[in-house]
Amino acid sequence: MSQPKVAIIMGSKSDLNVMQDAADVLKELGVDYEITVVSAHRTPDRMFDYARAAAGRGIKVVIAGAGGAAHLPGMVASLTHLPVIGVPVKSSNSIDGWDSILSILQMPNGIPVATVALNAAKNAGILAAQMISIADETIVSNLIAFKEDLKNKVEASAKEMES
Amino acid sequence: MSQPKVAIIMGSKSDLNVMQDAADVLKELGVDYEITVVSAHRTPDRMFDYARAAAGRGIKVVIAGAGGAAHLPGMVASLTHLPVIGVPVKSSNSIDGWDSILSILQMPNGIPVATVALNAAKNAGILAAQMISIADETIVSNLIAFKEDLKNKVEASAKEMES
Amino acid sequence: MSQPKVAIIMGSKSDLNVMQDAADVLKELGVDYEITVVSAHRTPDRMFDYARAAAGRGIKVVIAGAGGAAHLPGMVASLTHLPVIGVPVKSSNSIDGWDSILSILQMPNGIPVATVALNAAKNAGILAAQMISIADETIVSNLIAFKEDLKNKVEASAKEMES
Amino acid sequence: MSQPKVAIIMGSKSDLNVMQDAADVLKELGVDYEITVVSAHRTPDRMFDYARAAAGRGIKVVIAGAGGAAHLPGMVASLTHLPVIGVPVKSSNSIDGWDSILSILQMPNGIPVATVALNAAKNAGILAAQMISIADETIVSNLIAFKEDLKNKVEASAKEMES
Amino acid sequence: MSQPKVAIIMGSKSDLNVMQDAADVLKELGVDYEITVVSAHRTPDRMFDYARAAAGRGIKVVIAGAGGAAHLPGMVASLTHLPVIGVPVKSSNSIDGWDSILSILQMPNGIPVATVALNAAKNAGILAAQMISIADETIVSNLIAFKEDLKNKVEASAKEMES
Amino acid sequence: MSQPKVAIIMGSKSDLNVMQDAADVLKELGVDYEITVVSAHRTPDRMFDYARAAAGRGIKVVIAGAGGAAHLPGMVASLTHLPVIGVPVKSSNSIDGWDSILSILQMPNGIPVATVALNAAKNAGILAAQMISIADETIVSNLIAFKEDLKNKVEASAKEMES
Amino acid sequence: MSQPKVAIIMGSKSDLNVMQDAADVLKELGVDYEITVVSAHRTPDRMFDYARAAAGRGIKVVIAGAGGAAHLPGMVASLTHLPVIGVPVKSSNSIDGWDSILSILQMPNGIPVATVALNAAKNAGILAAQMISIADETIVSNLIAFKEDLKNKVEASAKEMES
Amino acid sequence: MSQPKVAIIMGSKSDLNVMQDAADVLKELGVDYEITVVSAHRTPDRMFDYARAAAGRGIKVVIAGAGGAAHLPGMVASLTHLPVIGVPVKSSNSIDGWDSILSILQMPNGIPVATVALNAAKNAGILAAQMISIADETIVSNLIAFKEDLKNKVEASAKEMES
Repeated sequence: MSQPKVAIIMGSKSDLNVMQDAADVLKELGVDYEITVVSAHRTPDRMFDYARAAAGRGIKVVIAGAGGAAHLPGMVASLTHLPVIGVPVKSSNSIDGWDSILSILQMPNGIPVATVALNAAKNAGILAAQMISIADETIVSNLIAFKEDLKNKVEASAKEMES
Repeated sequence: MSQPKVAIIMGSKSDLNVMQDAADVLKELGVDYEITVVSAHRTPDRMFDYARAAAGRGIKVVIAGAGGAAHLPGMVASLTHLPVIGVPVKSSNSIDGWDSILSILQMPNGIPVATVALNAAKNAGILAAQMISIADETIVSNLIAFKEDLKNKVEASAKEMES
Repeated sequence: MSQPKVAIIMGSKSDLNVMQDAADVLKELGVDYEITVVSAHRTPDRMFDYARAAAGRGIKVVIAGAGGAAHLPGMVASLTHLPVIGVPVKSSNSIDGWDSILSILQMPNGIPVATVALNAAKNAGILAAQMISIADETIVSNLIAFKEDLKNKVEASAKEMES
Repeated sequence: MSQPKVAIIMGSKSDLNVMQDAADVLKELGVDYEITVVSAHRTPDRMFDYARAAAGRGIKVVIAGAGGAAHLPGMVASLTHLPVIGVPVKSSNSIDGWDSILSILQMPNGIPVATVALNAAKNAGILAAQMISIADETIVSNLIAFKEDLKNKVEASAKEMES
Repeated sequence: MSQPKVAIIMGSKSDLNVMQDAADVLKELGVDYEITVVSAHRTPDRMFDYARAAAGRGIKVVIAGAGGAAHLPGMVASLTHLPVIGVPVKSSNSIDGWDSILSILQMPNGIPVATVALNAAKNAGILAAQMISIADETIVSNLIAFKEDLKNKVEASAKEMES
Repeated sequence: MSQPKVAIIMGSKSDLNVMQDAADVLKELGVDYEITVVSAHRTPDRMFDYARAAAGRGIKVVIAGAGGAAHLPGMVASLTHLPVIGVPVKSSNSIDGWDSILSILQMPNGIPVATVALNAAKNAGILAAQMISIADETIVSNLIAFKEDLKNKVEASAKEMES
Repeated sequence: MSQPKVAIIMGSKSDLNVMQDAADVLKELGVDYEITVVSAHRTPDRMFDYARAAAGRGIKVVIAGAGGAAHLPGMVASLTHLPVIGVPVKSSNSIDGWDSILSILQMPNGIPVATVALNAAKNAGILAAQMISIADETIVSNLIAFKEDLKNKVEASAKEMES
Repeated sequence: MSQPKVAIIMGSKSDLNVMQDAADVLKELGVDYEITVVSAHRTPDRMFDYARAAAGRGIKVVIAGAGGAAHLPGMVASLTHLPVIGVPVKSSNSIDGWDSILSILQMPNGIPVATVALNAAKNAGILAAQMISIADETIVSNLIAFKEDLKNKVEASAKEMES
C-alpha cells in the first residue's frame, strides 16, 4: 500500500465489526487507507497528536466512528482542517443509537462533521472516496462503476421478482 | 465570479433564510458557488437534469437543503458521483426537525449524504470548502485562518468573562 | 391475471417479506396487481420511467414500500398523478422505524403520500382495494365481506375467552 | 354544489383553521365536498350514524382530522368500507404532534387509515381528489394541471434566485 | 363468582398474555371480574353495546387493554360514565410502545382514561380494586395487606443482599 | 363545603394555573375537594404525613400534579391505599413534557398511578368524580349530564359549520 | 471492611446485575461501600430511615439505581444533604430506558441528582470515588492509576489493529 | 475571594445566562469559584491546558455547561481525575435539548460525567457544594440550611393556597 489518503479511526476495538465496512469499500474503490483505535476519552493525548499530525502525513480525509456520547469525530474535527466523516455506532448501552447520532451530528457552527447513517461505515468509505475523487480522476471512474454495479444488482432482483 | 465549484440548492425559496449561511461562508473562504431552487417533489425533471449535469459543468460538491420528508439531498446523491452535503432544515410543519434529519441522514448503503446539524448551512459551507481544499492549497490556508479566528474570538470572551 | 390495477414496488428485494402481505390481501380481495423492485437511490432512471409510465399502462394505484431514508413513495408521488400508498418498512439499521415513517409521512404540501403503519403492507393492500372500489362495485362487496370476516373472528375469540 | 363525493370531518371546531385547507384544495380541483364536526369522544352516536350512512349517501372518500389521542379517523374506518384519510392535527396540549400522528397512523391490520403529514389537510384534499379521479377523467386533468402549476412556481423562484 | 364489578376487555386475543395479570391480581384482592375480547376497530357494534350496557349490568370499573393505535379505552370512556383504566400493550409492530401509550393517554378534555404503564395490567387490576374499595371496606383491608406483602418481600431481599 | 372527598395537591405553587382546572370541574360535578402544595423533593416529611393521613381524614381519591422528574404522584401512591391520579405538568425546563409523563406513568408493578394527559387536570377531576360516583348516585347523574352537555356543544358547532 | 463511605442502593433485587459494577469498581479503587435494596415505592419508610440516617453513619456518597419511573435517587436526594448519584437502569418494561433516565435526570432546582449513563453503574462507582478523593489523597492516586490503565489498554488495541 | 475550589466553564459566552445560576448558588452556599469560557471545539488546546492544570491549581470540582453536540464536559472528564458536573444547555438550534443531554450523559465506562437536568446550572452548583462538603463541615451546615429554606418556602405557599 502507498501513503494512505484516508484515516479510519474508532473509539474502541469493539467498533471494528462496524468500521471494517469502511475499509472494505475503500479498498474496492482503490483508495489507500490506514486504520487504528483512538479514544477521545481514554487516550486524549493520542487523539490530539493523531489529529494534529494527520494532514502533515498526507492524510486527506478522516473517518471516525464512535458510539454513545461519541466525541471522537467532533474533537478530531476541532483539531484539523481536514474534512472529518462521523459514523454513529450503535453500541451496547446506546439508547437505540440516538446518543451516537446526536453527539456526532449536532456540531456547533464552525466545526462540521460529515455524518452518515447509524452504523453506515460503508457509506463513510464511499463518501471519503468521493472527496478524494475531487483530485483524482481514477477514483471518479471507480465511483461511476460502483454506482453502475448497484443499479445492475437491483435490476437483476427486479427481473427475478417479476418472473 | 469564475466557474463555481460548489452548487447550493434548496427545496423551496423559503429555505433561503437558512441556506444563505452556506453561501456567505463559502464567499468568506474564497470558494465560488452557485445557488438556486430545485425541488425533488415539485420539479423532479429539473432535479434529474441538474444533478446529472453538475459534474460536467465543473461542480465538485453539491450542498442540498430541505425540510420535512427531505428527499432532495438523497436523490441528488443517487444521480451523481459527486459528494453531496445535506442540510436538514427545520421547516414550519416539521416535527421538531426530526423528519428532516432522519430523511437526509439515514441513507441506505451505497448512496451516502454528508449530513450536518439541523439548520447548519454554515457548517455545510465549511465542509464543502474542506473538500475543495483537497485539491486547492489556497483554501487550506483560508480554513486554517478561519479556525484561528474562531479560537481568537473564544479567547477574547474568556478574558472578558474572567475579568 | 388481467391488466393489473395496482402496482406494488419496493426499494429492495429484502423488503419482500413485508410487502408480500399487500399482494396476498389484494388477491383475497379480487384486485389484480403487479410486483417488482424499484430503488429510488440505486435505480433512479428506472424509478422515473416506471412512475411516469404507470398511469398509461392502466395502473390506478401505486403501493411503495421502503425503509430508512425512504424516498421511493414520495418520489413516485412526485412523478405521477396517481394516488401513492407508502409502507414504512423497519429495515435492519433503521432507528426503530422512525426514519422510514417520517421520510414517507412528512411530505410537503402538494405531493401527498397515503401512509400506513410500520410494516403494514396488508393495510396498504386493503387501502388500494378501497380506492379501486370507488369505480368497481365487486370490490365493494369483497371489502364488506372482508370486514364481516374480521368481526366474526373477534366474536369467536370473545366466546372462547368468556367460556 | 351537487352531491358531494368527499366528506371532511373534524373532531373539534378548533381544528377548522387546519382542515379548511382540505376544502379549499378540493374546490380548486373541482371535487364537491361537505364539511362538519364529528367528535369520536363527545358524540360517539353521531360518529356511528355519520360513518355508517356515508357510503349510502354517495360519499366516496372521508377525510377526518383530529388531534391528541385522535380516534376519529380510525373509528370511522372501522365503520365504513370507504377509504378514510387521516389528518393529524397538532392541537394545543399535543406532545409536538406525536400523539396525533401515532394514534392515526398505527392502525391494526385490517382497518387502514391513509395518513398524511402533521396538519397537512391540503395533502388530504389532493389525495381524496386522486382517489376520486380513478373514476373521473376530469379530475385527472385537474390534478395534472395542479402539478404543472407547482412546477412552474418553483421554476419561477429558481429564476429569481439565480439572478 | 357473584356479579362481577370489574370488566376486563382487550382488543385482541393476543393481548391476553399481558391482560391476564389484571385478572390474577383482582382475584388475589377479592374483586370479581369478567374478561372478554372487544375490538374497537373490528367489532365497533359489539364495543358500543358492551360499553353502553356495562353500568346497567352492575359493572363499576372497566379495564381496557390495546396496542398500536389503541382506541378501545378511549372509545369505551366516551360511551359510559364509568371510570375506564387503559393498559397500553406493546404489540408486535408497535413503535416501542409509544403508539399505544400516546393513543390511550392523550385523551381530550372531558373524556379521561386512567392510564397505567406499558403492559402494566397488574397495576390496572390494583387500581380497579382501589376504586372499588371506595365503597367496600373488605377491599381496603385486602389492599393494605397487599402493600404490606410488597414491603416484606423487599425487606427480605435487602436482608439477603446485606449478608 | 363539607368534608372533602378529593385532595388536589401539586409540587409547586406554579402548577396552580394547570391544576385549578381539576378544582373547577370537581365543583361543577358536585364533589367537595381540598387543595394545597406538597412537594416530594422539598417537603418530603410533609408529603409523608399528608399521604399517610389522607384516608383517615375521609379523603377517597388523591389528585397529584407535578412536572419534570415528577415523583409526587408515585410517592403518594406508595404511602396510601387510596387511588392516586397523576397529572403530568409541562413545566418550564421540561423536555416537551416527556419527563413529567414518563416519571408519573411508568410506575412499577404493585403501585399504580392513574395517569391522565399532559396538563389535563380537568380530566383528573372528572376521573376522580367517576371514582367517587361508585359510591354516590348523585355524582353518577352529574356525570351523565356533563357528558350530555359535551355532546350538545359539539352538535351545535356541527350545525354552525354545516350552514 | 472498615466503615463504608459509599452506600449503593437499588430499587429491586433484579437491579443487582447492573449495580454490581459499582461495587466492583469501588473495590478496585479502594473505597469501602455497603450495598442493599431500598424501594421508594414498596418500602417508603425504609427509604426515609435509610436516607435520613446515612450521613450520621459516616456515609459520604449515595449511589442509587432504579428503573422505570425511578424515584429512588431523587427521593433520597430530598432526604439528605449528601451527594446522590443516580443510575438509570433499563428494566424489562422500560420504554428503551427513557423513563428511567428522565425520571432521575430531570430533578427540579434545589435537589440535584448526579446522573450517569443508562446502566452505567461502573461510572457511578468511579464518580463516587472521585468525590471521596476530594478528602483522600490515596484515592486520587488510585484514580490516576485507573485512568492510566484505561489508556494503556486502548494503546494496546491500537497497536494490535495497526499491525 | 480565596483560592477557588470550583471551576465553572462553558462552551460559549451565550451559555452564561444559564450558567450564572451555578455561580450564584455557590456564592449563596459559601463556596469559592472561578468562571470562564472554554470551547472544546474552537479552543481545544485551551481546554487541554485548563483541564490538565485544574487539580494542580487547587480546583476540586469542575462544572461544565454546553449545548448541541456538547463535548466539553466529557472531554474535561477525560483529562482530569477531578469529578466533572455536566450541564446540558438548550441552545438555539438544539433539538429540544436532546442532543445536549445525550452527548453529556451517555459517557462510556471509565469516564463519568455527573449530569444534571436541562439548563439546571443551579443544581450543578448545589451538587458541587455537596461534593466540597465531604471535606468541609461549614458547607454541610450551609446545605442543611439551604434545604430548610426550600422547605419553608413550600410550606408558606401551602398555607397561602389553603386559605
